[in-house]
Amino acid sequence: MAPDPDCIFCKIVQGEIPSAVVYTDDRVIAFEDISPSAPVHLLVIPVDHVTFLTGLDESSEALIGHMALVAGNLAIEKGIDDSGYRLVLNQGPDAGQMVDHLHMHLLGGGPLGGVAT
Amino acid sequence: MAPDPDCIFCKIVQGEIPSAVVYTDDRVIAFEDISPSAPVHLLVIPVDHVTFLTGLDESSEALIGHMALVAGNLAIEKGIDDSGYRLVLNQGPDAGQMVDHLHMHLLGGGPLGGVAT
Repeated sequence: MAPDPDCIFCKIVQGEIPSAVVYTDDRVIAFEDISPSAPVHLLVIPVDHVTFLTGLDESSEALIGHMALVAGNLAIEKGIDDSGYRLVLNQGPDAGQMVDHLHMHLLGGGPLGGVAT
Repeated sequence: MAPDPDCIFCKIVQGEIPSAVVYTDDRVIAFEDISPSAPVHLLVIPVDHVTFLTGLDESSEALIGHMALVAGNLAIEKGIDDSGYRLVLNQGPDAGQMVDHLHMHLLGGGPLGGVAT
């Protein structure tokens, strides 16, 4: 899928905007959130420009699961797998999705409060 | 994988504890959270007893992605896909994981606040 020329996360994937990348493979890239909400706050995004889960079919299930398993491995690397961490996918305005490129937040490093609201 | 006899979510899967089930297939089951944190608050869980992402290998990626895509379809059914929704996986104590059976929260139906902390 072609990158979206107006998408800041596509520009990060392309290396056109610098970011603190912590992991990359052929399907996903992970980097530090520039405005962290927790001591550990990473974003895991697909290399391809995808905005919404609801546009995806079963062929994308492995990609979404891969994002989660990569996040879990990064939690181990960051030393927060035992203390605990939260994975979050925000979709649309009520959730405050800030960038129209699917992204999974990995949050941890201290108590995170409630369920997630 | 055998159900855990001490797990409340395994008991829901087995039908031993009643719950407001909204979706089921051979891999996952979804039901209303009994203590909702948002106007729409569902849980999507694997039929098999799994506790942590970090114990999983690549063969489980499709299952985790399937949970997310089922949640996205439920967001459509609940009429919150346009207004927005949040998917959350809590792992371990800092995230407040309440039941040791992997579960994905689907939250929506109104503004959810911050990223998720």
